[in-house]
Amino acid sequence: MKVDGRHFRSIWLEPDGWSVGAIDQRLLPHEFVVARIESVEAAADAIRTMLVRGAPLIGATAAYGVALAMRSDASDAALDQACKLLIATRPTAINLKWALKEMQRALRPLPLSGRVEAAYARAGEIAEQDVAINKEIGQHGLALIEAIAAKKPGELVNILTHCNAGWLATVDWGTATAPIYLAHDRGIAVHVWVDETRPRNQGASLTAWELGHHGVPHTVIADNTGGHLMQHGMVDVAIVGTDRVTANGDVCNKIGTYLKALAAHDNRVPFYVALPSPTIDFSIDDGVRQIPIEQRATEEVATMTGRTADGRIETVRVVPEGSPIANYAFDVTPARLVTGLITERGVLKAERNALSCAFPDRASGY
Amino acid sequence: MKVDGRHFRSIWLEPDGWSVGAIDQRLLPHEFVVARIESVEAAADAIRTMLVRGAPLIGATAAYGVALAMRSDASDAALDQACKLLIATRPTAINLKWALKEMQRALRPLPLSGRVEAAYARAGEIAEQDVAINKEIGQHGLALIEAIAAKKPGELVNILTHCNAGWLATVDWGTATAPIYLAHDRGIAVHVWVDETRPRNQGASLTAWELGHHGVPHTVIADNTGGHLMQHGMVDVAIVGTDRVTANGDVCNKIGTYLKALAAHDNRVPFYVALPSPTIDFSIDDGVRQIPIEQRATEEVATMTGRTADGRIETVRVVPEGSPIANYAFDVTPARLVTGLITERGVLKAERNALSCAFPDRASGY
Repeated sequence: MKVDGRHFRSIWLEPDGWSVGAIDQRLLPHEFVVARIESVEAAADAIRTMLVRGAPLIGATAAYGVALAMRSDASDAALDQACKLLIATRPTAINLKWALKEMQRALRPLPLSGRVEAAYARAGEIAEQDVAINKEIGQHGLALIEAIAAKKPGELVNILTHCNAGWLATVDWGTATAPIYLAHDRGIAVHVWVDETRPRNQGASLTAWELGHHGVPHTVIADNTGGHLMQHGMVDVAIVGTDRVTANGDVCNKIGTYLKALAAHDNRVPFYVALPSPTIDFSIDDGVRQIPIEQRATEEVATMTGRTADGRIETVRVVPEGSPIANYAFDVTPARLVTGLITERGVLKAERNALSCAFPDRASGY
Repeated sequence: MKVDGRHFRSIWLEPDGWSVGAIDQRLLPHEFVVARIESVEAAADAIRTMLVRGAPLIGATAAYGVALAMRSDASDAALDQACKLLIATRPTAINLKWALKEMQRALRPLPLSGRVEAAYARAGEIAEQDVAINKEIGQHGLALIEAIAAKKPGELVNILTHCNAGWLATVDWGTATAPIYLAHDRGIAVHVWVDETRPRNQGASLTAWELGHHGVPHTVIADNTGGHLMQHGMVDVAIVGTDRVTANGDVCNKIGTYLKALAAHDNRVPFYVALPSPTIDFSIDDGVRQIPIEQRATEEVATMTGRTADGRIETVRVVPEGSPIANYAFDVTPARLVTGLITERGVLKAERNALSCAFPDRASGY
């Protein structure tokens, strides 16, 4: 999407045809800096240090990392070594594992002389595939927004989102944001309530930055605010992303999603979850009982990083020294609170039958 | 309650018998500094600059401010002037108006020679009355905690609270915290989940500080976390304070309270609201429709103040420049989500009959 009027993706092949460009997301929203990744080590560092983040973007970065490795040594040993290095960066990311398996599958049968070209081709396809899936999600979600707009002609369509399921987390478009960008680009008057999303503030620092640069009207709010807005008819629809959806349609997403879903349900506001189908985990049913919730560093709650009035980037502690802190990163929204799942194959009910009918190939393994 | 092992109130008469001591709450949790207030102008400044905050504490501070004014000039004109100065500090605070009316009523009939002594006496009574009411609230809430403890012998009683309805907001004990302090002091093993309470962070900066200094086990969490904890049986009861309760039992409190009440309801966790009876507004019924919600400065969302690793206090901006921000300060929790109201006259159902029977004197005006 757009940054200062120019179209960007979160990752791209540079015009030299071999080095990889990416937006350094650690510095957002305070600075917009483009990093150039020129080796598999640099690609691994970019993932590990969260220069890039978001499951689909991590997958694409890893794929390009393998391509960079092949340039200096296209042997099987080098391929294995590159995958080993990359998989260790964020061991729980599903897309990372998937992308590396794809690269192995594409390169292993080839003679060494063909591997560099094939690696760049496959990495490029992985990136394009992500863009295509997100655009499909966007088209299906757009229909929902158009239906709301049709019911209130001349008025804003107010959309609430939580965390960053935006183009920065993917290669382009994002998942939850894809319908929003499409609607905005088509001239539908949308306005987005952006949850700050403590403790890591991805809403305020990434989603607000994205929307602002693309020109989408939005307002940043504290995470506590969504219920009040819904009580007063100020939210027409909520659209969020997800990290994992169970076979029954339970939705694991950034902590606090469940609270917004409860408020949406209490106020009859439709609550949609946007996702590419690989996010569906057909091996489990009960999200609350079966999905282990990661506990992250307490520093994320204890501190905030931002810019001082005179322009320095500082990290400040906001919790008293000595007070214990807990940092649960995700929660689970039961399927009963989800109006629909916006996938690349359409908007589905959050229930087993709908999911397995839409994705019989994936569901049949279980 | 205790600070570094010594008992403190939030405001007190100094041993000199005339000057007033107070904790400078602007510096918490980073520094514990006691301010000495020696004039009505200083009392007004203390309220205006939020050196003191919390409705009951503001009332007590204003009362002492009038006493300080009487020392230099006990005339009717000086009394009126003092009240005018003090009322202008936080025009919407109900306790402030009430305390000044009480001081006028106590002093106006007296000869000038008796006013200083009477003013200190009445200010002292106002402070003591707040302490007594909170202790009553504490006793009634304690019974609820004891009942939970009895059902799970040998286990922690986990209590979730939002914002600061603690002793720092009152003269001592607090409202939501009074049952917790009493339970802890009696040896009941309580543990408090403290919502950070964005945007002003009163949970992390005041409630956690209070509980830590008094030795009450607690854990600070992001505001997004309560629902997850309740889903997993990690909260036995929620107790919050309130700024205004309608005749029907709707509860206006710090933004985000409604979301926690929804989660409590969804997980069958009892949700209590602690309040002194003057907080009940018998003139209105429907909180969502009738209580106007204050919008505060967007800077509260845009920035965070804390301590850097090398000890400086800095304010950093965490929202992108140019992103609009909304800052709704309160929300309304419908009575249907409230298990009970813990008042100085007992734990009441959140409904008109229960409130008007318990407080017929106050209800009869409407």
